[in-house]
Amino acid sequence: MSEKQKSLSRLKALDADIIKLDNIGALLEWDQETYMPVGAQKGRAAQLGLLAALRQEKILNPEWETLFEKLGCSTHPSSLKERSADNFSAAVSNAARFDSTELNEVDEAFLREVHRRWIRNKLLPRKLVEAIASQTSLAQAAWADARDTGNFSAFAPHLEEVVKLKREYAVTIAPDANPYDTLLDEYEPDADTAQISAIFDELSFGLQNLVDKLKGTVSGANLPALAFRNRSFSIEKQNTFGRKIQSHMGFDSSRGRLDLSVHPFTTTIGSNDIRLTTRYDENRVFSGLFSNIHEAGHGLYEQGIDENLRSTILGDGASLGIHESQSRFWEGIVGRSRAFWNFWYTEFQNLFPENLADVRIGDFYRAINLVKPSLIRVDADEVTYSLHIVIRFRLEKALISGDLRIPDVPGAWNQAYRELLGITPNNDAEGCMQDIHWSGGLFGYFPTYALGNLYSAQFIRPMENDIGPLANILEKGKLNVVLRWLKESIYRHGRVYKPTELCRRLSGKNLGSSDFLNYLSSKYSQIYHF
Amino acid sequence: MSEKQKSLSRLKALDADIIKLDNIGALLEWDQETYMPVGAQKGRAAQLGLLAALRQEKILNPEWETLFEKLGCSTHPSSLKERSADNFSAAVSNAARFDSTELNEVDEAFLREVHRRWIRNKLLPRKLVEAIASQTSLAQAAWADARDTGNFSAFAPHLEEVVKLKREYAVTIAPDANPYDTLLDEYEPDADTAQISAIFDELSFGLQNLVDKLKGTVSGANLPALAFRNRSFSIEKQNTFGRKIQSHMGFDSSRGRLDLSVHPFTTTIGSNDIRLTTRYDENRVFSGLFSNIHEAGHGLYEQGIDENLRSTILGDGASLGIHESQSRFWEGIVGRSRAFWNFWYTEFQNLFPENLADVRIGDFYRAINLVKPSLIRVDADEVTYSLHIVIRFRLEKALISGDLRIPDVPGAWNQAYRELLGITPNNDAEGCMQDIHWSGGLFGYFPTYALGNLYSAQFIRPMENDIGPLANILEKGKLNVVLRWLKESIYRHGRVYKPTELCRRLSGKNLGSSDFLNYLSSKYSQIYHF
Repeated sequence: MSEKQKSLSRLKALDADIIKLDNIGALLEWDQETYMPVGAQKGRAAQLGLLAALRQEKILNPEWETLFEKLGCSTHPSSLKERSADNFSAAVSNAARFDSTELNEVDEAFLREVHRRWIRNKLLPRKLVEAIASQTSLAQAAWADARDTGNFSAFAPHLEEVVKLKREYAVTIAPDANPYDTLLDEYEPDADTAQISAIFDELSFGLQNLVDKLKGTVSGANLPALAFRNRSFSIEKQNTFGRKIQSHMGFDSSRGRLDLSVHPFTTTIGSNDIRLTTRYDENRVFSGLFSNIHEAGHGLYEQGIDENLRSTILGDGASLGIHESQSRFWEGIVGRSRAFWNFWYTEFQNLFPENLADVRIGDFYRAINLVKPSLIRVDADEVTYSLHIVIRFRLEKALISGDLRIPDVPGAWNQAYRELLGITPNNDAEGCMQDIHWSGGLFGYFPTYALGNLYSAQFIRPMENDIGPLANILEKGKLNVVLRWLKESIYRHGRVYKPTELCRRLSGKNLGSSDFLNYLSSKYSQIYHF
Repeated sequence: MSEKQKSLSRLKALDADIIKLDNIGALLEWDQETYMPVGAQKGRAAQLGLLAALRQEKILNPEWETLFEKLGCSTHPSSLKERSADNFSAAVSNAARFDSTELNEVDEAFLREVHRRWIRNKLLPRKLVEAIASQTSLAQAAWADARDTGNFSAFAPHLEEVVKLKREYAVTIAPDANPYDTLLDEYEPDADTAQISAIFDELSFGLQNLVDKLKGTVSGANLPALAFRNRSFSIEKQNTFGRKIQSHMGFDSSRGRLDLSVHPFTTTIGSNDIRLTTRYDENRVFSGLFSNIHEAGHGLYEQGIDENLRSTILGDGASLGIHESQSRFWEGIVGRSRAFWNFWYTEFQNLFPENLADVRIGDFYRAINLVKPSLIRVDADEVTYSLHIVIRFRLEKALISGDLRIPDVPGAWNQAYRELLGITPNNDAEGCMQDIHWSGGLFGYFPTYALGNLYSAQFIRPMENDIGPLANILEKGKLNVVLRWLKESIYRHGRVYKPTELCRRLSGKNLGSSDFLNYLSSKYSQIYHF
C-alpha cells in the first residue's frame, strides 16, 4: 500500500467513528420524537450536547491535519479564506484537489467531503458554535410562544440575534464570499445564490401563470363530489394501507421501520437502520397517506446507497435538494398520478367501503390534486408549494444581506403572499411565524424544498428514456422497475457526485424550471381542461 | 471553596459525562431489544463498541489521577494490590478513606464509588478487556446454538475460555484475593463468598424442608380448579391491567414508559427516563402480570432516587441484590399476597369475565402461589426459585476456583438438581445451558437474585414497625403508603449506603436467611394447611 493509500485508510477509520456518533445522535433524536417520556426533555438535551462535543473532538482530532498534509490538501485556513472570494465550496474543492492519479472517483469524493467537514469545523471558533447552539435553542422556545400568541415583536429580538450569528458564521468560514452562498452550501453543495435566484424567478413566473389558468377551473371543480376527503377514515386502516404502499415501493422493513411522530421525518440510525415517521389524522386521510409515501421516498434513497458507501461520509444523499427530489418524486409524480391510482384505487376503496363506495376514481384523482393558493406551506398543493419557498428564499436572502430589517419581516411577508399567491395572512402565526426553520438558524435550507421539485421533474425524461413511459409502469403496479432505475442512477451513488454533477450526468443539462413547469402544466391541463 | 471541594466539584463534572454515556448506551440497548429492525444488529454492536471505548477514555482521563491525589486517595495500583489480600472492595475502601472532616456522607460515598470505578478500570489492561468482550460475544452465539441443539460439548471450549479470562480478570484486579470475591464485588459490593456460602447453606436447608412439607399438600391441591390459569386471556386487556397496576404502584409515566421485549427488563435512559419492558403470553396470564409488577418494582426504585443523586454515579441501586429485593418485594410479598388481591381481584375478574367468572378468589390465590420443583429457573415459584440460585452459586464458585472442570459441569448440574429439587433434567438445554449468564462472563451475578429475596423479607419488619401490618394496607389498596416508606428508607439514598450498611440500618442486623424462610413458611402453611 502506498503512503497515500495508507493515509486514506486511516482517514476512513477516523471517519467511521464520526458517522457512528452521527447515528447515535440520530437515535437519540428519533427517540425524542417518538417514544421518550415528556419528563426526559432536559436530560436528553444534555446527552445530545455531550455527543455534539465528542463529535467535534473527533472531527478536530489533530491527526486529520497531519493526514491531510500527507495527502497534499490545504490545511491553512488563512490561505483558504483568501481563495474563497467567489464561493466557499469551490475554494474547498480547489484545496482538496491533488495529484489524483492514485485515487478512484469514490476516494476522491470521500476526501472532498471529509475535508469539507473538517475545514468548516476548523474555521469556526468554539465560542461561536456554542453561541449559535444556545441562541437558537432560546429562539426556538421564544418562537413557539410568540407563534401561539401571534406576537411577532416578542420573537423579533431572538430572530435578530440568530440572523446576526449566522451572518458571522458565514463570514467566519468564507470572509470574501457572499454569506448566503456559504449558508446554502451547507445543504446544497456548490449552489449559487445568483443561479437559484434566476431559476426561482422563472419558476414563480411560470407557477403564477399556471395558478391563474387554474383559478377558474379549480374553483369550478365539483367540490361537493370531493367532500369525501374529510370523512372519518379509521387510523388503523390508514396505517395498514400506508405500510402496504411503502412495502410495495420497496422499503425494506428488516432494515428500517415506521413509527408515529408529530412531524413526519426520516432518519438514519445505522447503515441498515432507516427510520420513517408519519402521522395520521382521522379526518384528513390524504395527510397520512402522502406523508407515508413522501417519507418512504427518503427512506428508499437511504436504503439504496451502495453498501460500501454506507457508514461513511458518502453514505448520504447528494444534497438536501436531491434528497427532497426523491421524496417529492414518489409523493407527487408517482403518488398523485392517475396511473398509480388506476392500479391501487380499487384496493383503497375496498378498505374503506363506508367512505369510498360512492366515490369514482376520477373524483378521487381530482381530490388528491386540488389546487388552491393557501397560507400554510406544509398544507400546500403540488402547484403552489414552490411559491411558498420562493417567498422564503427571497426574504431570508435579504435578511442575511441586511437588505431586510427584522421589524419589516411581517410586512414584507404579507406583501409577498399578496403578490405571489394573491392572499394575505390574517396574523403572523399564519404568516411569517409558521415555520420553525429561522428560529433554528436554518438559513439556506428552504430553497432545497423547491430544488427537490425541480430535480424530480428533470429526472423524468432520463428515466423514461431507459424504462419507457412512467404511466405504463405505474398502471401495472411495477414500482420495482422504477426503484431499480432510481437505485442504479441515483441512490447507490450516495454523495459521490455533487448535486450539480449528478443533475448533468442524468439529464444532460443544468437544473432549470422548465421540466417541472411542463410536468405541472401537462398534468393539470388534463385534469382541469384548460 | 476549599481546594478539596474544588477537586470534588471537578470530579463530579467528569462523572456527569460518564453517566451520560451510560444512559446513551442504555438507550441503544433498549432500542435493540424493543424496536430496532433485525438487520441493524451488526451496526448496533459497532456503535456500542465505540461508546464503550469513549466511556473507557473518560474513566481513564489522566485528570482523575491528579484529582484523586489532591484528595489523598491512593492511586498506585501496586500498593492497592498488596493491600487486597483479603477482599478487593475493602482494599479500595481503605484507599479511598482520607481526612473526611470536610466531606458529608454523600460526597464520601461519591468519592468511594468513582474511585472504585476508576481503579477497576485502571488495573485492567486494554488487551484483557478486549479479549473478554470478543470472547463473550463469541461464547454467547455458541451458547445459543448449542442450547438449541442440546450439545454441551460444542459450548464447552467457549465456556472454558470465558472462565479462564474471568479468573485472569479477578486476579489482575486483586491478585491476593479470592477471585470469586472480586467477581461478586462487582455486583454486590463488599459481598463475601464465605458469608454467602453460609447463608445459602441455611437457606437451601430451610427451603428443602419447606418443599418437603408442601409436597403432599400441593400435589393434593385441587388442580382442576386452578386450570383457569392457562385459559386464553386477551393480550390487550392484560396490557391494560398491567399498566393500571403499575400506575397504582406509583410508576410515573411522565418519567418512564413500558414497552414489549422478549426478556423483560428495566433500564435507566436518563434521570427522568426509566423504561420497563414486559412480555405477554395469551395462555400464561400470570407471566405478564407478575413481570409487570416485578419490573415496576425496579422502576420505582430508580424513579425514587433523590434528584441530586440521579445523573451521578450514586444514582443507582445500592447493589444488584438490593435492586432485586425491590422487584421481588413488589412481585412476591405484595403482588402474590392475599391482601393485595382482596383489593384487586374483583376488578381483574370483571376485566376477564369469560375466564374468571367461575373462579373464586381462594382458587385464584392458590393458583398464583402453586409450588412445584421444576427445571427452569425463570419459571420457578417463590419457594423453589432460590434453590436454582444456590445450585448456580455453588457451581460457578467451583468453576472459578478450578475445583469443577468444564466437562464435569453437566454431571454436577444434574446431580445438584436431583439433590436440591429432586428432579433431573432430560438434557443440557433444560439443564446447565438454560441461562445466558455464564456465556456472557457474568460470574458472581446469580447470587444477587437470591440475596434479593432475602433482603426483601428482612425489610418487612422495619417497614411494619413504621407503617403497621402490610396486609391491612394492601387490603385497602394503599400502595402509596408502602411506596412512601420504601422511598424514604431505601430508594432516595441511591448508592450512598453499601448494601451491607443499608441492611443493618434498616433491619438492625446482617443479612440472613431466617426472615425469608419464616415469611415463606408462614404464608404457605396458611395456604396449604400444614
